[in-house]
Amino acid sequence: MLKNKDLLGINELEVGEIRLILETADKFKEVSSRRVKKVPALRGKTVANLFFSPSTRTRISFERASKALSADLINITANPSLGETLADTALTLEGLGVDLIVVRHDQAGAPVQLARNISAGVINAGDGAHEHPTQALVDVYTILKEKGSLEGLKVALLGDMRHSHTARSNLYCLKKLGAEVAVGAPGTMIPEGLEEFGCTVYHTTEEAVENADAIILTRVSMDFGNDKLLPSLREYSRFFSLNTKRLALAKPDVMVLHGGPINRGVEISATVTELAWPHLREQVANGVAVRMAVLYLLSMRGSEKR
Amino acid sequence: MLKNKDLLGINELEVGEIRLILETADKFKEVSSRRVKKVPALRGKTVANLFFSPSTRTRISFERASKALSADLINITANPSLGETLADTALTLEGLGVDLIVVRHDQAGAPVQLARNISAGVINAGDGAHEHPTQALVDVYTILKEKGSLEGLKVALLGDMRHSHTARSNLYCLKKLGAEVAVGAPGTMIPEGLEEFGCTVYHTTEEAVENADAIILTRVSMDFGNDKLLPSLREYSRFFSLNTKRLALAKPDVMVLHGGPINRGVEISATVTELAWPHLREQVANGVAVRMAVLYLLSMRGSEKR
Amino acid sequence: MLKNKDLLGINELEVGEIRLILETADKFKEVSSRRVKKVPALRGKTVANLFFSPSTRTRISFERASKALSADLINITANPSLGETLADTALTLEGLGVDLIVVRHDQAGAPVQLARNISAGVINAGDGAHEHPTQALVDVYTILKEKGSLEGLKVALLGDMRHSHTARSNLYCLKKLGAEVAVGAPGTMIPEGLEEFGCTVYHTTEEAVENADAIILTRVSMDFGNDKLLPSLREYSRFFSLNTKRLALAKPDVMVLHGGPINRGVEISATVTELAWPHLREQVANGVAVRMAVLYLLSMRGSEKR
Repeated sequence: MLKNKDLLGINELEVGEIRLILETADKFKEVSSRRVKKVPALRGKTVANLFFSPSTRTRISFERASKALSADLINITANPSLGETLADTALTLEGLGVDLIVVRHDQAGAPVQLARNISAGVINAGDGAHEHPTQALVDVYTILKEKGSLEGLKVALLGDMRHSHTARSNLYCLKKLGAEVAVGAPGTMIPEGLEEFGCTVYHTTEEAVENADAIILTRVSMDFGNDKLLPSLREYSRFFSLNTKRLALAKPDVMVLHGGPINRGVEISATVTELAWPHLREQVANGVAVRMAVLYLLSMRGSEKR
Repeated sequence: MLKNKDLLGINELEVGEIRLILETADKFKEVSSRRVKKVPALRGKTVANLFFSPSTRTRISFERASKALSADLINITANPSLGETLADTALTLEGLGVDLIVVRHDQAGAPVQLARNISAGVINAGDGAHEHPTQALVDVYTILKEKGSLEGLKVALLGDMRHSHTARSNLYCLKKLGAEVAVGAPGTMIPEGLEEFGCTVYHTTEEAVENADAIILTRVSMDFGNDKLLPSLREYSRFFSLNTKRLALAKPDVMVLHGGPINRGVEISATVTELAWPHLREQVANGVAVRMAVLYLLSMRGSEKR
Repeated sequence: MLKNKDLLGINELEVGEIRLILETADKFKEVSSRRVKKVPALRGKTVANLFFSPSTRTRISFERASKALSADLINITANPSLGETLADTALTLEGLGVDLIVVRHDQAGAPVQLARNISAGVINAGDGAHEHPTQALVDVYTILKEKGSLEGLKVALLGDMRHSHTARSNLYCLKKLGAEVAVGAPGTMIPEGLEEFGCTVYHTTEEAVENADAIILTRVSMDFGNDKLLPSLREYSRFFSLNTKRLALAKPDVMVLHGGPINRGVEISATVTELAWPHLREQVANGVAVRMAVLYLLSMRGSEKR
């Protein structure tokens, strides 16, 4: 049983809880290979996809997971311009009898605030530069399925560590499960004090990926307003992109993961994208199983409580 | 059994029909407290949410109600710019075999026109300054659940009576069920001849709420183009906002309702919003039960007819 | 059994396959008249509506058809601006375990490219000026239900043959089933070499519709950037619009079809629209049955293959 009614970040999860989610995902993974790819576990429950900022990939992964559990799903594209507070939105969803809320928001902390105002379970699906716990769970699940354990593995995290909620969740999750984490990015993309989380920070892709068992890439983009992180994407591509030459420095059986959307030719070359294809596809497939596990476990907790 | 295939306004409903809807809502209210919160009443039926102007709250209330009845729901965000007439839209929905259509439109009368062109049942979910019947039914249902009867109760309607479809439907509904209605708003927000509906019109919030058993608030906004209703929202807030001081003039057990979205600090103070929380939440919850009742009763009528 | 896992165009279908789809549609047509208007044929399957350009009518027809087959449906409004390639989108949908993808795209050939990158079945729901096979199947099905056979019938295709995917699919489909096809449009709307498909090209509506058994209209609009097809819509309306006078030249029992959205007063007069109403509604209703047939047959093929 999970301790909290919400999944707001990896940081607050105990190792035992992470393992429970991953084991439950394993059971749901099998459902996708059935002829009728769904189970009645959440029949009569309602899941709301509450997206204050767009993320097609995450939204449809949760939608697919909800429907595979036979839950009713309501998609809500929230418009903060209406001046409603998060508390007002919570009021509506509470009144409607929604059981679980998947929330995506530009501002770090918004899911925490929502969770405090509502008895339904809240799942953080990415809040600003804070956390995106289910994506990190998907990534470790994908590595575990192939490598068996994370103990002693070297995992390289490449890309913008400053703005990525996924990178931060990944860092927490990998450390909790015993991996050695190497971060590789230009200095402007590394928040201060990152080493305190127990990772090693490199300023070249070459050093970060050297001898790595797995590489997790983060989308690099220029759309961060005044935060001038690099002269140009071309610059990033030239000095940091994961290309075949840099990839050759990693272990021969290295896994390459990317939570998408891929900025092809920026953080990863076209050739490496092709090579990584089977792992990338597996990552998406595991996304459904892991999100089914999270929805299921939180819904069980909700039923218990009442 | 309802008389018409459509629910276009409270004005056209007989008192017996209003009571039938409220009694049916009472039966569906219990469904929300079950473990599996749905019934198969509308299985195989299709409900279309046809929204020509956005209203997240109303849309998801109908979506939740439809799914709780096991109907299939299709969300359609209509784009009038394509130059299609309402008759063409009716043609499509008729051809698709849609059973019930929930329609929201900026123009008063659009749902009536749609209803004439289609054999499916049409539910008006707000048309310009005309009516929003289900919201009024939700409000009286919420009052009745607590007060037992509306006979002899004093209900205050505060806010923009000129542009609000909900306020107009509320007025009709409260009068039909025997309440004494006091309207409170600046003169520019009161349409001419409003007293003819049997309400008392006041130009101060204080007079309107004095001794009230229930207060129903309407969102006040400035986005009405050339209709300059007030110097500023701040002005409205200062002289008309429901604050604790004004609220104290009502009965001690007064109920405060607001159909949302709440313009906090404009028509209602933050403190009164907090005080009203339990009633506001109940209002949203009742919204699902009342809309289930309307969908169910109209669908029964549709089955009868064929 | 259909030969391919995808339905990309009429051009690639054998006559036997077209007949199989139409016969299957006939079986599903009956479902719409039941009290519970759905069958469990695709329970546990997921259909994705992947729309890179909007088309409400086509989208909701596929949505209704999917739900009538008890499939789970995911609507995706794709945003090409994110820079994702079609291959990346394919990756996501493949990973999610989507069984069938309905795709609409501005660029001819996009569905073909998607189909090559994914094991799921792909249905082309309109790609630029290329094909829109299900709409053509709907049109011939509607004609066949009334006329019994297309052999020896004269069918007039009116409107923009250059930009319309439906018109092209119609041409292929009608010829394969033995109809005589007369095209009527201004020269700027006729692509070069159209006669090679075995149709007769006229530059007046009068000649094209003379003695016709059926007339299929295509929406005429001005929104084709630099392609200046005509001086004005008014010009088109005056010289080419299907009005009662021109309609009188066709057979007395002529059927008038239009895939919508109708540009009333441009390609068809208001009076003829009224006259055509029963056929237009039947066309929309048949759209659900034909799309159910296509979804069902492709899903059978998918199950076989695995």
